[in-house]
This record gives sequence, structure tokens and C-alpha cells, in this order.
Amino acid sequence: MDYRNVREQVTDRLREEVLLGKFETGEALREIPLAERFKVSRGPVRDALLQLSQEGLLESVPNKGVRVAKLWEGKLVPVMAKVRFDLECFAISELIKSTPEGFFDKINRNLRMFKMACEDKDMSAVVQLDLQFHRLLLRECGHVGLESVWLPLLGGMRLPYSRHGLLTESHQEHRQIADAIEKGDKKAAIAALKKNIVKPFDGK
Amino acid sequence: MDYRNVREQVTDRLREEVLLGKFETGEALREIPLAERFKVSRGPVRDALLQLSQEGLLESVPNKGVRVAKLWEGKLVPVMAKVRFDLECFAISELIKSTPEGFFDKINRNLRMFKMACEDKDMSAVVQLDLQFHRLLLRECGHVGLESVWLPLLGGMRLPYSRHGLLTESHQEHRQIADAIEKGDKKAAIAALKKNIVKPFDGK
Repeated sequence: MDYRNVREQVTDRLREEVLLGKFETGEALREIPLAERFKVSRGPVRDALLQLSQEGLLESVPNKGVRVAKLWEGKLVPVMAKVRFDLECFAISELIKSTPEGFFDKINRNLRMFKMACEDKDMSAVVQLDLQFHRLLLRECGHVGLESVWLPLLGGMRLPYSRHGLLTESHQEHRQIADAIEKGDKKAAIAALKKNIVKPFDGK
Repeated sequence: MDYRNVREQVTDRLREEVLLGKFETGEALREIPLAERFKVSRGPVRDALLQLSQEGLLESVPNKGVRVAKLWEGKLVPVMAKVRFDLECFAISELIKSTPEGFFDKINRNLRMFKMACEDKDMSAVVQLDLQFHRLLLRECGHVGLESVWLPLLGGMRLPYSRHGLLTESHQEHRQIADAIEKGDKKAAIAALKKNIVKPFDGK
């Protein structure tokens, strides 16, 4: 396996764990124990910590190492939710205009697995598949660079994963988004997206 | 000088050079020659390349190394300009509600230096001071994490720096933003911001 793959796998795994709330806010993440746990060298762990710091999930404190970043607070939360909504709306509107070959196969596979993960209350899979659904929209809409702006938006928004009640709702909303894209119904797709990513942060 | 400082300096310097258009789009950036040029070890250069890839200024191509990323194209450009505008509007509105001690000293120092750089047509200083002005808004408005979302937005937008005619206009707009914040005039601040960061990308 090439180095870049290892780095990406470690990054994805750590991102998932942070989003899932497996660490406390402010908890230090150290290279050596993580490298031992993932059975990799320190290089990819260091890269992963740096990348997740850039995404705002971790923060680097001078002379104190890397820690799990604070969640966004107060008025920043709806601002960020709105920005994320705008970017995903753009992706959806581009996908409706021109859907790449194989897009719905990927989406439907994701939705089937998401449903199973919800039924099994497998939170680790839920986080990963939720992320994957939204990343598919961003990656497949034909605009390189969109994802690098979108990813840091998730950093401070890891709360809703702890609300188990939202899981099946979330799957339902994803299903509605995908169906509306397939029908070319932009209005319905955007209404479902709004429920999915703006509503959970409303009124905070 | 500690390691983190070296890494940040190399990152800032490289970011400035890419934004300034010192490299061609698609040009490869290699660790060893950069390390030699900056007279540092390869570690901080590698970190800088990784960070700028995350910010969308560079892109990592498997087995081909790191290259200068393409500029954003078509409809993505106004979408990104709008998102950047929304984030900076939020920062300005927070700054008007509560301005931290010493904020206007920093802003005024930046504006004096920006003016000199424009007069001297010192593009390297212009890029740095333009970035610094906007970063001051983001950093001082009291919301940690905002900057990590905002920074990648600059990635695909490095065109206007090559338009020399915009320089003095840009300084004027910054001055108007700062004055309006000082007077607590949100409407005027946001009008000046709109001219500064949305107008250059209009109609593309």
C-alpha cells in the first residue's frame, strides 16, 4: 500500500472518531500511541493530525501538541450551517443539470448501507456513511476544489451524531435528496437538504 | 526558532507566492529545491505543501507530487465569492458589536503599509497585506474556527492580484470597511466589503 493511502486511511479513521465524539473536547492526540494503535509509522499520523487541524477538528496548541478542538458556539453555528447549505445546494443544482455516469449506483449503495447502519445503531458506520453521502454530492458535481472548502465546515458541527433519534430521519432526508436529484426536482432536493443540514442547528 | 514557526513561515511565504502567480498553474512544487531555497529542512516544506493542498491552492496528484491547483472556473467562482462574503459579513457584524482592544491599531498599521505597497507597486507586499487585512477581521471577531473555513476559500481566487489597476481601489475599500466598523455603521461596512470581494468576480 502506498504512503498516500495509509495517510488517507489514518486521516479518515481519526476524522470519524472525532466526529463520533470518541475523544473529549480538549483531549490531546499523541503521535506515538496513535501510530501504535493504527500499526503505522509516525509520518502518516503526523500528516493526519495536521490535516484535521486544518479542517478545524483538531487544534494545534504551541508547546502542548494537538488537541480536539472546541465545538462552534453561539451565533457561529447557524452561519456555518448556512454556508454548508449554500455549497451543497450548488452541488445539487449542478448534479441535476448533468449527472455523471454511475452516480446513482454509488448513492444507492450508500443509502442501503446507511439504512443498515441505522437499524444496527452502528454509530461508527453511520458517521462514515453520512459523510460519504454528502461528499459524493460535492465530489461528483464536477467542480474540483469545492470539497476542500466544504470539509472544514464540518469541524465544529459534530454534535448531532450523538442524537440517536435523528438517525432514521437523516436516512430519510438523504433518500429524498437522491430521489429529487433523479427526478430533476431542484426545489424538493433543496427542501430535503435544508431539513438535513440546517434544521439540526436552528435556534442555537 | 521553534519548528512550528519555521513551518508557518514557509507556509505563509509559499501561499503568498502562489497567490501572487509566481508559479504556473499545474507547475510541480518539489520538496528538495524548496527546502534549499528557503534554507530549511524538508519537514516544514512537506508540511507547508500539505497545508496548502488542504487550502486548495495546491493539489496532490498520486505518483506525481504536488502541483499548483487550477483556478476555480465558471459558476463556482461567484458561489465561493458569496460564501467568503457571508463569512466576512459575520465577522464585521461581530466586530461592530464588540471590538477587541488594539484592533484599530493593527488595522491602521496594515492600511498604512498597504498604501505604501500600492504606491511602490510591491505586489508581494500587497498580497500579504491584503490577506492580513481580511485575516484580522476573521481572527479578531472572537470566533475561533472561522479562519479555518475561510482560508480555503481563497484557493481558487488568485486572479485579481494580477490586475494592477485594482490595487488602489482595494486599499480604498479596506479603508472604508475599517472606518465603518469604527463608526458602528454595519451597512456601510458591508457595502464596502461587497465592492472589495464580490465585485471582482461578478459576471464570470
